[in-house]
Amino acid sequence: MQIALPDGQLLELPQAAAAAEVAARISPRLAREGVAARVNDALQDLMTPLPEGARVQILTRRDLEEAAPLWRHTLAHVMSQAVGELYRSRGFAPEALRRGVGPVIENGFYQDFDLPEPLSEEDLPELERRMHDIVSRDLEVSRVELDREEALARFAHDPYKQELIRELPDGVAITVYQQGDYADLCRGPHVPRTGLIPRHFKLMSTSGAYWRGSEQNPMLQRVYGVAFASKAELDAYLHRLEEARRRDHRRIGKELELFTFSDEVGQGLPLWLPKGAFVRRQLEQYMFEREQARGYEYVITPHLAREALYLRSGHLPYYAGDLYAPIDIDGELYYLKPMNCPHHHAIYAARPRSYRELPLRLSEFGTCYRYEMSGALSGLQRVRGFTQNDAHIYCSRAQVKDEFIGVIEFFQEVYADFGIEDYGFRLSLPDFEGHPQKFGERTPEWDESVAALRAALEETGVPFVESLGDAAFYGPKLDVQVRTVIGREETIATNQLDFIQPGRFDLTFMNERGEREVPVVIHRAIMGSFDRFFAFLLEHTAGYLPLWLVPQQVAIIPISDRHLEYAREVEAQLRRAGVRARTDAGSERMNAKVRAAELAKIPVMVIVGDQEVASRTVSVRGRALGERQGMPPAELAAELGQQGKPGRIPA
Amino acid sequence: MQIALPDGQLLELPQAAAAAEVAARISPRLAREGVAARVNDALQDLMTPLPEGARVQILTRRDLEEAAPLWRHTLAHVMSQAVGELYRSRGFAPEALRRGVGPVIENGFYQDFDLPEPLSEEDLPELERRMHDIVSRDLEVSRVELDREEALARFAHDPYKQELIRELPDGVAITVYQQGDYADLCRGPHVPRTGLIPRHFKLMSTSGAYWRGSEQNPMLQRVYGVAFASKAELDAYLHRLEEARRRDHRRIGKELELFTFSDEVGQGLPLWLPKGAFVRRQLEQYMFEREQARGYEYVITPHLAREALYLRSGHLPYYAGDLYAPIDIDGELYYLKPMNCPHHHAIYAARPRSYRELPLRLSEFGTCYRYEMSGALSGLQRVRGFTQNDAHIYCSRAQVKDEFIGVIEFFQEVYADFGIEDYGFRLSLPDFEGHPQKFGERTPEWDESVAALRAALEETGVPFVESLGDAAFYGPKLDVQVRTVIGREETIATNQLDFIQPGRFDLTFMNERGEREVPVVIHRAIMGSFDRFFAFLLEHTAGYLPLWLVPQQVAIIPISDRHLEYAREVEAQLRRAGVRARTDAGSERMNAKVRAAELAKIPVMVIVGDQEVASRTVSVRGRALGERQGMPPAELAAELGQQGKPGRIPA
Repeated sequence: MQIALPDGQLLELPQAAAAAEVAARISPRLAREGVAARVNDALQDLMTPLPEGARVQILTRRDLEEAAPLWRHTLAHVMSQAVGELYRSRGFAPEALRRGVGPVIENGFYQDFDLPEPLSEEDLPELERRMHDIVSRDLEVSRVELDREEALARFAHDPYKQELIRELPDGVAITVYQQGDYADLCRGPHVPRTGLIPRHFKLMSTSGAYWRGSEQNPMLQRVYGVAFASKAELDAYLHRLEEARRRDHRRIGKELELFTFSDEVGQGLPLWLPKGAFVRRQLEQYMFEREQARGYEYVITPHLAREALYLRSGHLPYYAGDLYAPIDIDGELYYLKPMNCPHHHAIYAARPRSYRELPLRLSEFGTCYRYEMSGALSGLQRVRGFTQNDAHIYCSRAQVKDEFIGVIEFFQEVYADFGIEDYGFRLSLPDFEGHPQKFGERTPEWDESVAALRAALEETGVPFVESLGDAAFYGPKLDVQVRTVIGREETIATNQLDFIQPGRFDLTFMNERGEREVPVVIHRAIMGSFDRFFAFLLEHTAGYLPLWLVPQQVAIIPISDRHLEYAREVEAQLRRAGVRARTDAGSERMNAKVRAAELAKIPVMVIVGDQEVASRTVSVRGRALGERQGMPPAELAAELGQQGKPGRIPA
Repeated sequence: MQIALPDGQLLELPQAAAAAEVAARISPRLAREGVAARVNDALQDLMTPLPEGARVQILTRRDLEEAAPLWRHTLAHVMSQAVGELYRSRGFAPEALRRGVGPVIENGFYQDFDLPEPLSEEDLPELERRMHDIVSRDLEVSRVELDREEALARFAHDPYKQELIRELPDGVAITVYQQGDYADLCRGPHVPRTGLIPRHFKLMSTSGAYWRGSEQNPMLQRVYGVAFASKAELDAYLHRLEEARRRDHRRIGKELELFTFSDEVGQGLPLWLPKGAFVRRQLEQYMFEREQARGYEYVITPHLAREALYLRSGHLPYYAGDLYAPIDIDGELYYLKPMNCPHHHAIYAARPRSYRELPLRLSEFGTCYRYEMSGALSGLQRVRGFTQNDAHIYCSRAQVKDEFIGVIEFFQEVYADFGIEDYGFRLSLPDFEGHPQKFGERTPEWDESVAALRAALEETGVPFVESLGDAAFYGPKLDVQVRTVIGREETIATNQLDFIQPGRFDLTFMNERGEREVPVVIHRAIMGSFDRFFAFLLEHTAGYLPLWLVPQQVAIIPISDRHLEYAREVEAQLRRAGVRARTDAGSERMNAKVRAAELAKIPVMVIVGDQEVASRTVSVRGRALGERQGMPPAELAAELGQQGKPGRIPA
């Protein structure tokens, strides 16, 4: 048969030859250094037969990134082989070990085992050592095709393999990959020698995993590993992981006593503890004042409503899965609200409206309840009850652009105050051709809306990307995408133009010409939900919240009991100036108190001893102001007053 | 037979003689002026046979207050007679009118009718005129006893009377009271002549009322009247009524657009409109700051919880009637919270507590949902969802007295800020003898608790009354009783000591001696619920809220368009100083704008015309500052800054 090389040259090969043959024909060096092959633009290993007429390119160590799925896969086999050797060293026969699947995943791989005794986390370094050893042995990896009878005989001791082999359809090659004395049923692809695997790997953890993901099946033990092409990449990954752990809002929330969950209250229903609730209240009050300044009108609506409201909004029956079961009150069904818009529409509709009132911007810190599967719940990030920093802007079509400009500028103002810099906008557009059933026909309303949003983005000059097909069915969206400090991209807020709901709710206004006109609605949430924004902020700051948000700004620490009186004087003076200061009058030694204040992430520590009492000053430490000595309390209060305002969050 | 006079004198009378006979025997004057009789301390009319051996005193016009049930009752007959005359004048036969009951009620009376055509409100003056005429005729009122046959024959045309007559038990006298040509089936009592009725009455309204209160029966028309012994009393009553109407928070709430209800959202679930929600937010922020200053720690908890929490609290099954039906989430039942305490207990229990943390004062603006019958709902006063200004103080038994002193002082501080002066405390105590099943045995805990509360009341020196038997089953209460401006006494807040729930929730703390101890809980709500407090405040101020609460403090009114620019300058200057000012740039004339600002109850109006522009000053009007001229805007801002703080509410 014939295959083509990248330069167009044709090679004549025996039928069913593999890419290794191609490498050998090109050069001995390539035969030695070949890692994988690009066959008709798909990745394939060097041991698998080539299709007739394929275009074939040999990848080498210089293409390690691209070949990652192969060497990560081989590494799973290496790990599996190492487990075999470990158990043999402990006196178990090879047949005592059974194996589930061992695929490649993002950044690494895993392998499932049914072991005669479980692996512990302490075994992982030993396993890693053995894996390095197997890599060093530079074992050849060979691919063997078997028929079903041979395969069943070969894995006679392993019921999992038996099950897989029996299920393989006729006509599919049953293959085994072998390296040294280790072999496993496997589709491949693999690198041709264990020595080609980069040594930048690490076993991360073990966990339980049901065979084929079903609770009906036996629980296997899964061992996870990560593997990278370079040490720098591995280090960066481990650093990111450590940062993610250090910044995990659930961990910080527990350590700083910000929020908790209670089994008796229920999953996904956060209890905001005093310190967390204080921050939340500050966030709310901040947004309240900013919204008032921008002409928003704050409203408060109840947390439930009759079925009729949701039938009208279309949540019922179309989004019934988001809603909790209804409550029967005097024969009428009530639902916990999954969003605030229908309630705001009810306020809009409470009396006739005139164009003179538009844009009408109704805002609410509205608590909503939506169904989430218990497995999807995660700290404050994914909950069943959350409080949105919500607003609905009712305006005429001519006002849409200016209102979106206002929304974009509002984002910029708030994000600057929180030191959030790495974010951008995404204009989510309809895709009439790709999803005609979702977006219907292209209409003048769609064109006008998209044009208004695009113009708003261009006039404000913010960077944005466009995303075809991500619009809502009722209008285009403006999503705010944030890159978190650990490198994850998140949609932190979504703003939607809506020209459908106002009609459903019969919302109108009397326009300049005395005619009834239907307004459009902009759904807007600057912080998204306070819950999720707080989770983001904890991660963003690693729990070191800025002065204006923290419940306690200053810990006053007397060096000994004879400085307590002066400490209390300083506290009183700071408090009068509006500083949230508290004296630590406990019996611990000074260093323990400093340590406690640091653990509580209190931004400023004030130390008072003989010298401070004598000079009527304080010594200052801590993140917010650094070290200062001989500072008069009034000066400290003034400086904290300056810094204790929004707009100074160090990431 | 013999009867006794008040002076002990005995009178010999014929069997079944009435009190009129007694009056006649004493003097002709008393026979003429007698209105009623006090017979063995009960009120009776002069026409009804006396029982043998009764003590009898004749009441005259000087005893009009005491005799009110009689002349109010006769007045119902007079009104009924007047209705008969009115319909006769309109050509209806007397038999075309049928009558339901006509009892005396507080301050007046009513009578139900089944009329050939309905009465309208416009008929009431004509009816009153006819009533005065009947009183002037000084008709004698006579009492006639009939047997059942006679009675049925007499009221053959009236199915309602037929029904009543048939139901009367055997042996009871069937009586008819007659005055002039009008007679009605009636048990009495009545005054002996229509001329004895004081003329200080007024027909108030008509409404529909089912015969015998059942929807299964025909709808009758009910006419209400009030009647007093003196013009001064009638005037005072009408004034109170007008005040109640003028101050009705539902009316004010509608006029000022503070809150509304929506049929689609559901009954008793208030929607706070922008102006009302602004005030609510001010109230909340005020309480938040005051609570922070007093060492309360703000928390936020969800609006639902699992059944388990309410089984533990004892709400289930004992108070199931207050709860709405549960919601099934993944097979577990969740209830909307009827109160916040169980959630706060969950926060207390989130980690071990030490005596050093007590008293722990958890506060929340917690929205609760409780079942109310739809007929009981009334504006913001009685709703199905409301937000409490709630707090729970966890403390040791030794701290109870001081904590209650703190609570009492907190009330005094807040009420002074709102100009609420006419209030007092009520100490609600257990009644072990009267209600042993509710309060159980008298225990040292009860004694200690009651003593602590009483001591707190005495130390603060506030006036209080004691109320035996009104304690909760879990401890004594301290209720706050307010007398409203229209003279109604209301319990505006209740504080409860609770030594039962902490045990149910296994709440403990480590005391000074290293032993586990159970805290007590004080349930405390200064404003009660924000909903109800706001309703109270609207009534208290007749909608004229103080400067610091109103959403718009100043309306700036340019005399003509050429003053608009300066008006906007003044607005900007005031806004920079934190004053909530807005320019009325509409096309109406100045007087119309002033009227609109008055109707919106905006406390300050600022008028700017040629003179003000020339002198860079403003003219001021309105409730808050009175009339001022030539005032520099900066001076106005300063004065409003001074007055725009809590503590200055004119009632």
